[in-house]
Amino acid sequence: MEGIKVSFENEPYRDPDFIINHKAPFNAEPKPDVLVQSFITPTEKFYVRNHAPVPDICPTAYTLKIDGLVGQPLTLSLNDIKTKFEKVTITAHLQCAGNRRTAMSEYKKVKGVGWGIASLSNATWGGCRLRDVLLHAKIFSKESGANHAVFWGLDFGCPEDNGKPYGSSITVEKAMDIDGDVLLAYEMNGETINRDHGFPLRVVAPGIIGARSVKWLDKITISPHESESFFQRRDYKIFHNGVDWNNVEKYWDKTPSLQELSIQSAICVPAPNSALYLPFTITGYATSGGGRKIERVDVSLDGGETWDYAELLGEDKGVCTKYWGWTLFRYTITKLPQLEGKDSTKIKLVCRAWDLSSNTQPKDVKDIWNLRGVMNNCWHTVDVTILNQNKKSNL
Amino acid sequence: MEGIKVSFENEPYRDPDFIINHKAPFNAEPKPDVLVQSFITPTEKFYVRNHAPVPDICPTAYTLKIDGLVGQPLTLSLNDIKTKFEKVTITAHLQCAGNRRTAMSEYKKVKGVGWGIASLSNATWGGCRLRDVLLHAKIFSKESGANHAVFWGLDFGCPEDNGKPYGSSITVEKAMDIDGDVLLAYEMNGETINRDHGFPLRVVAPGIIGARSVKWLDKITISPHESESFFQRRDYKIFHNGVDWNNVEKYWDKTPSLQELSIQSAICVPAPNSALYLPFTITGYATSGGGRKIERVDVSLDGGETWDYAELLGEDKGVCTKYWGWTLFRYTITKLPQLEGKDSTKIKLVCRAWDLSSNTQPKDVKDIWNLRGVMNNCWHTVDVTILNQNKKSNL
Repeated sequence: MEGIKVSFENEPYRDPDFIINHKAPFNAEPKPDVLVQSFITPTEKFYVRNHAPVPDICPTAYTLKIDGLVGQPLTLSLNDIKTKFEKVTITAHLQCAGNRRTAMSEYKKVKGVGWGIASLSNATWGGCRLRDVLLHAKIFSKESGANHAVFWGLDFGCPEDNGKPYGSSITVEKAMDIDGDVLLAYEMNGETINRDHGFPLRVVAPGIIGARSVKWLDKITISPHESESFFQRRDYKIFHNGVDWNNVEKYWDKTPSLQELSIQSAICVPAPNSALYLPFTITGYATSGGGRKIERVDVSLDGGETWDYAELLGEDKGVCTKYWGWTLFRYTITKLPQLEGKDSTKIKLVCRAWDLSSNTQPKDVKDIWNLRGVMNNCWHTVDVTILNQNKKSNL
Repeated sequence: MEGIKVSFENEPYRDPDFIINHKAPFNAEPKPDVLVQSFITPTEKFYVRNHAPVPDICPTAYTLKIDGLVGQPLTLSLNDIKTKFEKVTITAHLQCAGNRRTAMSEYKKVKGVGWGIASLSNATWGGCRLRDVLLHAKIFSKESGANHAVFWGLDFGCPEDNGKPYGSSITVEKAMDIDGDVLLAYEMNGETINRDHGFPLRVVAPGIIGARSVKWLDKITISPHESESFFQRRDYKIFHNGVDWNNVEKYWDKTPSLQELSIQSAICVPAPNSALYLPFTITGYATSGGGRKIERVDVSLDGGETWDYAELLGEDKGVCTKYWGWTLFRYTITKLPQLEGKDSTKIKLVCRAWDLSSNTQPKDVKDIWNLRGVMNNCWHTVDVTILNQNKKSNL
């Protein structure tokens, strides 16, 4: 393919502080305490989820193809994308459906790249609306079968899909929703998008799982059907817990493909098994799908027996009509009655979020366990030891 | 008030088969097996949630007032409503935020009308779009503070609110959303709406708690603030479980008012503690808020240890872009290995739904218990005894 090199020998530079979950293809997340240091995640700290080598695309040779159920198939240069369509900037988080998979695997082994609690990040994205491009291509009506916008990347070499590039789809309803804010993005955090995040052009489909925001976008086909990619039809589905590797084939078709993200939150500070003096502050993130506002984050100091409301920070929908960005939260603990007279006490911190639809997180990973380890959004628990400052100074 | 009589002596006729949870004001639900007999609930079976005596309104004297942050305050007759604005018909379920409150109270006492699992129903509604009326009234922009559509009913005499009529509000964002489908309804199931359901005019705000769909609509005020009614500011909120009647005042303002419904499902057939022969069929309903499609209902025969997918029936969004109606489901059990050689066996049936946002129901009522007993959407469990047909014929 002209102007494109695909090889693991040609990977971009990465932040040395990343937690690397898989080297090739590269999959990495920032340390949790780094993740919540700012509302906008710096580009070099933004989690990276690749399925193949990062293509090295010559921007002047690059074209985007649009075909399928459209009246006017298009081939657009990067310059066309930048000049023919209105530029829009949105703030949105992206989150891998595999976020918190490692914790699911700890309950019972699942298959997939292990992720901690930081395979999500929040950025600003600049580009044109997918809607505008599809209108330009004279997209057919739903009655004519225009149901899905099918994306293919240029990252040839996905091992799960026999070396094909990564592919995925979203509904035309989402693609064409004036408030859906699906972008073809060429900027990230005010700069040209970098190679790891999809240079020169990627989909940013806010409010739905990161897997649908295809990077290094090669082609968009408007189709009556979902993408036929492995990643749409076989992966990124929540199978019920009776599905295993012996019977999964029976369930591929009857289990829906994931689209919107569910309600999620996690405690990023303090780290598990920390030893801390009072006062200390819990900091974390909360997110929901579909642009639904986070209404509340509850924090518990006793494993979920009693709760209090955390303070919500960084609620910001910017110019968007919906809440695509994440919400950071904090909660400060100044006293702990059970510490009195003791050297230390162990406590179990828990958080759970609620969105404007009163959806909240399930308690136990057991109840949402699934073969592929996706959408682990159970209560997030962090065990810490609180040390008695007075006792220490008495020594 | 001219043309309106308010007295418990003048209540309408009701179905004698209703389960009455409170007599005056009248609060009643159908029997669960009756509830799921059809996709559209017959009007006389539709649950009734009143807060005061049912007003007896003379339709020719009736007017709807629109004021507040609008360029053109309006007073509209019923005839104006019916003739000046396009008539729209939608299918939508309404659900009381107190649905399944009795089960919450069984865990730990809450305050409020006790409801079983049937304080929801599904109907077609005919009327005009609230959006069209507000555009006609030249509603101000959000920048001018037009944030909430505040509704007042004509049901004077709500005891909780010092004899004021029932009041509530929704966001202007929901009211004006072209896909939000908020109606001022004068028809229900193809007939003139009856007194118990709001004659001559009510709000139908699909996808959000029933409490916002104000009946016997007197006035709409466009305001920077939510309704000041008791039912907006103090009731219909999920307080965390540390809030009790001694400290609730501290939490009124910092706990958000409920709007969108959360994910919900329940088994309506068989009834709890039934004794059944194989094969038998479980039937129930599943709903979600915000018009989100029900993607999956899981059924368990062992208290939630293992699951299978139920068959979904009656998914029908009609002319709407969103799924406001409920989804009925069924699951047939033809064999039960543990019954072999025994006279009978006790099993625990459970259901839980998932919506397109991968939100699912919490397992335990304990974890979502709240002082007012709202939004109980925990897994629904039904204990039944399965009898061995073969054993019986052997006797």
